[in-house]
Amino acid sequence: MTIEELKEKKPWVDRGTVVFMSDFGTVDGAVSAMHGVADEVDHHLRLEDLTHEIPQFNIWEASYRLIQAMTYWAPGTVFVCVVDPGVGSDRESVAVLTKSGHIVVTPDNGTLTHVERQIGILERRKISEAENRLKNSQRSYTFHGRDVYAYTGARLAAGIISFDEVGPELEGKPVMLHVQDSVIKDGVIYGSIDILDTRYGSLWTNISDTMVSEAGISYGDSVIVTISYKGRVVYSYPLTLCRNFTEVSMGEALVYINSLLNIGVALNQGSFASAYHIGTGEGWLITLKKN
Amino acid sequence: MTIEELKEKKPWVDRGTVVFMSDFGTVDGAVSAMHGVADEVDHHLRLEDLTHEIPQFNIWEASYRLIQAMTYWAPGTVFVCVVDPGVGSDRESVAVLTKSGHIVVTPDNGTLTHVERQIGILERRKISEAENRLKNSQRSYTFHGRDVYAYTGARLAAGIISFDEVGPELEGKPVMLHVQDSVIKDGVIYGSIDILDTRYGSLWTNISDTMVSEAGISYGDSVIVTISYKGRVVYSYPLTLCRNFTEVSMGEALVYINSLLNIGVALNQGSFASAYHIGTGEGWLITLKKN
Amino acid sequence: MTIEELKEKKPWVDRGTVVFMSDFGTVDGAVSAMHGVADEVDHHLRLEDLTHEIPQFNIWEASYRLIQAMTYWAPGTVFVCVVDPGVGSDRESVAVLTKSGHIVVTPDNGTLTHVERQIGILERRKISEAENRLKNSQRSYTFHGRDVYAYTGARLAAGIISFDEVGPELEGKPVMLHVQDSVIKDGVIYGSIDILDTRYGSLWTNISDTMVSEAGISYGDSVIVTISYKGRVVYSYPLTLCRNFTEVSMGEALVYINSLLNIGVALNQGSFASAYHIGTGEGWLITLKKN
Repeated sequence: MTIEELKEKKPWVDRGTVVFMSDFGTVDGAVSAMHGVADEVDHHLRLEDLTHEIPQFNIWEASYRLIQAMTYWAPGTVFVCVVDPGVGSDRESVAVLTKSGHIVVTPDNGTLTHVERQIGILERRKISEAENRLKNSQRSYTFHGRDVYAYTGARLAAGIISFDEVGPELEGKPVMLHVQDSVIKDGVIYGSIDILDTRYGSLWTNISDTMVSEAGISYGDSVIVTISYKGRVVYSYPLTLCRNFTEVSMGEALVYINSLLNIGVALNQGSFASAYHIGTGEGWLITLKKN
Repeated sequence: MTIEELKEKKPWVDRGTVVFMSDFGTVDGAVSAMHGVADEVDHHLRLEDLTHEIPQFNIWEASYRLIQAMTYWAPGTVFVCVVDPGVGSDRESVAVLTKSGHIVVTPDNGTLTHVERQIGILERRKISEAENRLKNSQRSYTFHGRDVYAYTGARLAAGIISFDEVGPELEGKPVMLHVQDSVIKDGVIYGSIDILDTRYGSLWTNISDTMVSEAGISYGDSVIVTISYKGRVVYSYPLTLCRNFTEVSMGEALVYINSLLNIGVALNQGSFASAYHIGTGEGWLITLKKN
Repeated sequence: MTIEELKEKKPWVDRGTVVFMSDFGTVDGAVSAMHGVADEVDHHLRLEDLTHEIPQFNIWEASYRLIQAMTYWAPGTVFVCVVDPGVGSDRESVAVLTKSGHIVVTPDNGTLTHVERQIGILERRKISEAENRLKNSQRSYTFHGRDVYAYTGARLAAGIISFDEVGPELEGKPVMLHVQDSVIKDGVIYGSIDILDTRYGSLWTNISDTMVSEAGISYGDSVIVTISYKGRVVYSYPLTLCRNFTEVSMGEALVYINSLLNIGVALNQGSFASAYHIGTGEGWLITLKKN
C-alpha cells in the first residue's frame, strides 16, 4: 500500500487501539494517567500495554522491545513509547507511520532504531504541541508521556486528527542508535548484545548459529568470549559451547544457542549479567574466537 | 453542577469505567478476581488499574496516588481503592461523590484525605452490605475488595444501583490523616514527606521552591535537613541545595527541586529512603534551615 | 447443563472474554504479543490477565492460582494458561470445557489439577496445530503461548471455531499433580503446602482449623511442625498456635489460622519460606503433632 492509500484508509481509526510502553514502572499512577487521558479522548479505544518495565532511560531496550511485540499487533495499532532521558533537551517529539501500517508516537531519541532497520518508516512528522497537547496540562515528570504522546496517540486512533495534522513532515531518518552488525573477520566473530533475558540474566547476542558454524565452532568447543563496553574489556574468558546448561557446573558460565537461534551467554543457575555487570545496547561489543 | 444535577445526569453510567487500586500486588489472582466480579456485573464496563503496588497497608500512599491520577480520568470514572489494614475493625465502607464528578468506593480509613483536601467531597454514603455484596461470597483475605467494593463500584458504573442506593448518607467528613502543611517559622521551614520517588528512592516533600526562596536559601547553600518520625529525629545533617545530582559525589546526599517544583532529598546514585529508613505520610516531619 | 447444551449455547461466544496467565513476567513484550494476537483474531474481545508472575515453570502454583480466580469470572470466560517447562517435549496442548462452563486452553502438564479436582472437566480436546496455529508463526520462546494457545483461545471466544473444531477428544483425565489430602493418623496431621502468601512469605497448608481441633490442638498449644520435601526433612521444630503474629517475638516462627480457615506457618515480620527455603506443591509435605 502506498502512503497516500494508507492515509486515505486510516487503518488506525478502524483499529482504535493504543498500546503503551515506558520506563515508568507501575508503582505510581503515571501509566494510569496516560490511560485516563486516552480514555477521555475517546471512550471506545482499546487501551493496552507493551511493558512499563524498560530499565530507566534505556532507549536501546525500548527500541528492541518495541520491534519484538509490534508485529503481533494488527496493522493500524498505535504505539505510544516513552523512554525519554532527554525531557527538556532538543530531541523532537514525533509520530511515524511504518511500512507495516503501524503508528509510533515517541520522542525521536533512538527508540525507532529497530523499527527503521527491520520494518521501515514511511513518514515522520514532528508533533506540533500548540495543537496536540492536553489542555491545562502542567509541568510534571510524566509531562510529555501523558500530555503530548498519550494525547496525540489517542487522537490519531480516534480519528480526531489526521496523520498530517500531527505536524510538519521531517526529512531524513529518525535518530538512530549504532547497531553493530555481526561479522566474521580473521576468524573472530564480532556482534552486539541485543538484550538481557531478564528471567535468567543471560545475554542474547545478534550472532547467529550459522555464523558460529562458519567460524568453525562446534558444540563442545572452547570459545574465547570477550565483552567490552566502549572499547574497555569487561570480560574475557574461554567458555564451552553447550547444548544444555547442565553440561557445566552450577555457577559456571557457558555459551549456548538460544530460542532465536542466536548465541547466548549464561551462568548455570545464576545471572551472568549481574555477576559481571554487563549491559546491553550501544557501546557493548562481544567477540567470539575458537580457542 | 449541583449534587442533585449530578445524580440526575449520572456521568458514571455514561462513562462506564471502573479503575482499581490496591496493595494486593499482581502475583496472585486477587486483582483479576475483582475484574471478574465487575465484568460479570456488566460486560460492557471498561476495567482499568491505577496501581496495585501500594506498599502494604500504607493508607497515606493510597490517598496520595489516588489524587495524582484521578483528575486525568474523565468525570464519572469510578475508583475502587482497597488498602485496608482494618478488615474486621469498625471502619466504614463508603462510596463518595466528589466535586469533580468522580466516585470513589473505599474503606473510610484515610484513603480519602487528599481527595477531600484538594477536590472536595459532595456526599458520602455508607455501603449497605445487605444489598451491596456479591451473592454467596465467602470469607477470604480479599473479601471486601472483591465482594463489596468491586461489586458496588461496578453496579454504580453499570447504572444497576443509583448513588443513593449505596446506603445511608453519612454526616461530617471522611476519616482524615493528619497532613502537615508546609510553613516557615523563625527561619525554619516545616513540611511533610509526601511520597518516595520509587525509581530513585528520593523523598518528595510538600515544601515548594518559593518557600525555600522566602527562607533565604539559594542554590549552593548549605541547609540543615532534619527528618523525624513521631517526634524522634532519624536524620539531621547539613546538605547542599543542588541543581544537579552530579554536583555531589556518588553516594552523597543532596537537596534539590523536583519536577513538581517542591524540595526533594536524594542520594546521588543511591536510595536515600533505604539508606536512612525513611517512610512517608502521617508522623513523618521534615525541617529545613539555612546553615 | 449437559455438555451438548453447553456446546449449543456457546456461553464463551456471548462472553467474548479471554483471561491470560503465565510465568512470562511483564518485563518484555511476550504478554503483549499474546494480547495482540487475540486482538487481531477479534477486535471486540475483552482481554484480561490473571497473573504473569507465576514462579518460572511452577505448574503447581499455576494450577492453584487458576482455581482461585476462575470462579469469579462469569461462565464462558476463556482462560489461556501457559506455564510450560515442557516446550518441545511430548506433553499435549489441550482445550477443556469445565462443569462450570469455563474453557481453559493450556499445555496438559498438571495445570488442570485443581480445576479437575474441585470443579470437574466435561471434555478435553487436543489442539490440532495444523488448523489452530497463527499463520507464519516462527520459533521463539513464547511460541506456543502466543501462536497456539492465545490464538486458539481467542478463536473460541470469537466463535470462529467451535469447541469440537479444537481437535480430537481425549479419553481419560488430564495430567494430574499428586495432591496430598489432609488426614489425621495416630494423632499426626498430614497435609500439603498449597501456596506461599507472597506478600508475607508465610506458608498456606490444606489443613483446616476443624482438623486441628480434632487433633486436640488449641490456641496456645505447642505443636511440632515438620516439613519435608520428597521424604527429606527440611524443618522440624515446636511452634505455638497463635491468634496473632504479635504473640511471638519479632523473627520468631508461629502457626496460625489463615483467612481461608486453614493452618499457615509464618515468621513474625519475616519470610518463613525464604528463611527455610520452603517450596510449594508436589513433593512438599507438612505434619503437625501436639507437643
